[in-house]
Amino acid sequence: MLPFKSILKFDKNSAEAVYKQIASQLVLLIQKGILMPGMQLPSTRVLAADLGLHRKTIMAAYNALIAEDWIVSHERKEYRVSTLLPIIKPRSYAGQARTNYTAEAPFLFNEPQVRTLAVLSGKHKLIVDDGFPETDIFPVERIAEEYKKLLTHHTLKKASSTWSIGGSKFFKDELAAFLNDTRGLNIEPENLIVTRGAQMAIYLAASLLIKPGDKVLVTSPNYFLADAIFTQLGAQLIKVPVDGEGADVDAIESALINNSIKLLYIIPHHHHPTTVTMSSVRRVKLLRLIKDHQLSVIEDDYDYDFQYQHSPYLPLASGDHNGNVIYIGSLTKVLGANFRLGYMISGVDFLNGALKLKSLIDLRCDVLMESTIASLMQSGEFSRFIKKANKLYNHRCGFTANLLSNELPHLLEFVKPQGGMALWLKFKQEHSLAGILNKASSLGLKFGGSTYLKKHNLGYEALRFGFASIDENNIEFAVDVLKRTL
Amino acid sequence: MLPFKSILKFDKNSAEAVYKQIASQLVLLIQKGILMPGMQLPSTRVLAADLGLHRKTIMAAYNALIAEDWIVSHERKEYRVSTLLPIIKPRSYAGQARTNYTAEAPFLFNEPQVRTLAVLSGKHKLIVDDGFPETDIFPVERIAEEYKKLLTHHTLKKASSTWSIGGSKFFKDELAAFLNDTRGLNIEPENLIVTRGAQMAIYLAASLLIKPGDKVLVTSPNYFLADAIFTQLGAQLIKVPVDGEGADVDAIESALINNSIKLLYIIPHHHHPTTVTMSSVRRVKLLRLIKDHQLSVIEDDYDYDFQYQHSPYLPLASGDHNGNVIYIGSLTKVLGANFRLGYMISGVDFLNGALKLKSLIDLRCDVLMESTIASLMQSGEFSRFIKKANKLYNHRCGFTANLLSNELPHLLEFVKPQGGMALWLKFKQEHSLAGILNKASSLGLKFGGSTYLKKHNLGYEALRFGFASIDENNIEFAVDVLKRTL
Repeated sequence: MLPFKSILKFDKNSAEAVYKQIASQLVLLIQKGILMPGMQLPSTRVLAADLGLHRKTIMAAYNALIAEDWIVSHERKEYRVSTLLPIIKPRSYAGQARTNYTAEAPFLFNEPQVRTLAVLSGKHKLIVDDGFPETDIFPVERIAEEYKKLLTHHTLKKASSTWSIGGSKFFKDELAAFLNDTRGLNIEPENLIVTRGAQMAIYLAASLLIKPGDKVLVTSPNYFLADAIFTQLGAQLIKVPVDGEGADVDAIESALINNSIKLLYIIPHHHHPTTVTMSSVRRVKLLRLIKDHQLSVIEDDYDYDFQYQHSPYLPLASGDHNGNVIYIGSLTKVLGANFRLGYMISGVDFLNGALKLKSLIDLRCDVLMESTIASLMQSGEFSRFIKKANKLYNHRCGFTANLLSNELPHLLEFVKPQGGMALWLKFKQEHSLAGILNKASSLGLKFGGSTYLKKHNLGYEALRFGFASIDENNIEFAVDVLKRTL
Repeated sequence: MLPFKSILKFDKNSAEAVYKQIASQLVLLIQKGILMPGMQLPSTRVLAADLGLHRKTIMAAYNALIAEDWIVSHERKEYRVSTLLPIIKPRSYAGQARTNYTAEAPFLFNEPQVRTLAVLSGKHKLIVDDGFPETDIFPVERIAEEYKKLLTHHTLKKASSTWSIGGSKFFKDELAAFLNDTRGLNIEPENLIVTRGAQMAIYLAASLLIKPGDKVLVTSPNYFLADAIFTQLGAQLIKVPVDGEGADVDAIESALINNSIKLLYIIPHHHHPTTVTMSSVRRVKLLRLIKDHQLSVIEDDYDYDFQYQHSPYLPLASGDHNGNVIYIGSLTKVLGANFRLGYMISGVDFLNGALKLKSLIDLRCDVLMESTIASLMQSGEFSRFIKKANKLYNHRCGFTANLLSNELPHLLEFVKPQGGMALWLKFKQEHSLAGILNKASSLGLKFGGSTYLKKHNLGYEALRFGFASIDENNIEFAVDVLKRTL
């Protein structure tokens, strides 16, 4: 017999009944494998004497364990650890990758080759990103303050008892007003649902529209994770070129005439990756094509809020499109990677479909975060912050462009974008971008944004230089490193 | 000519050049439709005289607008508003539901009939939920404090420059340790990815495993949004019954022998909706079947942390399953609806597949929220909170069960669950549950949880009574209302 007297501890003054204390400890001994399946336990009389407890206490403990299948008794005399217990020795998943799953089976799209999605190494002095905001100017105190104000038992209870698959009312109201103000839209909150970033909105919209074999019009190059979604859904991509005025609308027209096109995906502002803004002339023609062909369009307008001309180009969604444009955007480019507040704008029927699908994937929104940002929208702080950020990014855009023009005209070329957070640097043919990246990395500079090498068949090599998040010293450092790679 | 002198305002002392001020205002006039497409603008000489400015200033403004396609000039003499401008009159989406989309086309699953996902009306004194936590005991100050501490420019910058599709390192480390401690697992952080609630984890896992036509084993009844996912993915559901010991494992065995089963979805703890915990005997047999048949399993263990026996039943994932069990859980049942921190545990290959798919849907995690909760895990506060909540819920479970047994034995029956946050109330045949719900609603009581009526073909009518979030007074109110419906 195990030395139960020294193993089983109890406290008669505890709020928990002694029999429960004994029972709990016996279960632990079973779980730890000290009491093995099938092992006989001492009789209630013997254990009671050993522990100096009343026999009824031990019986109560044993009965509790019998009720929970931990032990079995033979005519209430002989007690044994159940042999039917799950084997509870901690199991590792290492080397246990078995499931009816082959890693490549369900994927129709290629692993994004363009940009590594792995965590970037920390050994570099500077990581140039794909075009993310400057976090140093975020109103973090105000956000924390609002968040704290909202994080109350009352608001949590309310969040618990109401559903918000497509966003909370307060946020949707404020967001709709903000979008109407800034984008020449005229939507009601019911024309808007909130998603985890623009990414989820693209996934939901594409999933509703695309059936395997459908043809989807995209630019070449294109935002690689949009292409990946369409391919994963079984679509055939029909590619049109992008030049200095944006997507080639004549090529879109030809494609519409020659094919049955299910969907056009387009980024008219600061196209990803090339940063080109579509010209007014092409916008007008594209709107006409959309109407004439009743063409479904996903307009991805991920960084509309950062335009550096006198007055912004408005989105296609603000034009005359017969409801064919599904407008997708995000606050992530304003507030940074941690705040994944995307949205989709469309007719109510389409959004109801999107919500139905979303309920399978992401059942609730982050009501607290939504309310926090809605408060900043309501007070005007959100718009003032965008204005401030716009000024800074415009300055950094000019600073980076000047420095690159002056220092590296022999290495690369670019067109200064009309807005956004990145420059699209095309490297001249005589230089190998892979070589440059390796050399730069050894000098402490990593490019973490979209990078297109020869193998991607663009006809040139290029990368996105996200200038918005980098101060002047670091921009100078980056340009200097690029110079030293030669 | 428009009275430009009174319309166009400028400030020579502004930081913005006067020509830019003029240009911006002209764009606004165009956007507002005051300057119509094709309309002739005054010559630079005339407008300069009108405004009392130098002619070069007006030329600079016009040139800026020409560069942006707002106006066109004929030989730099005649200036007109472009006729090619997008029509920028604010557009409503109301009644513009056109897109190549038919609302029902992409959906293979039926609209969840069981529970309305709509926002619940606020006119009721009490809403009994599906089984949500009590928000009043949440450590809201501590969460807000940690959140504020973490919401710094530095952490935001770090979140910006690292990717976290499957969760941040700090949170994964702490969560893996917590799960190993509480669930008899022995996983490394690499065996874990973070998702938006258990829901997204089920969606990702099912999407990797299921191809159209595959057979999926589920219980009847089952968590309705899991069934919806499988159906949407084209699976055929093979249903096995649930009784007082959990899913019928003999029926599972027969199904495995008679069919080629791709996947088993199971909730061994506090099965949804019935709240039954699977017995040890059945667990042992099920583990053997899983190994013998190399059966892929999704174990949905959404409220493991709330078990009221002496020692918890461990999950199947802690048993000997050859890596076939994909273990899915959530912190939402601990922290409430606002905190959508779910997770999936499996082998590294499978998780890499899940991340690849997740990158199309939800590109980043909420690093700040993850870090906040990880801090509470590290300090032990998280576990202490669960213990506190467990005690409260256990008490409320007993209180509700006693009251229902004493007051309503003629109306309904139930088995007190071994854990979880809800009772599964089966109404006796002579009463119409729809009638009871209507009457209760008129008396100020709404049931917002899963409700199964005759049309759902269960053979009985039942609903989930979430007791965890309701205090004793309100439990008494709810029972009293039910009594008064008779």
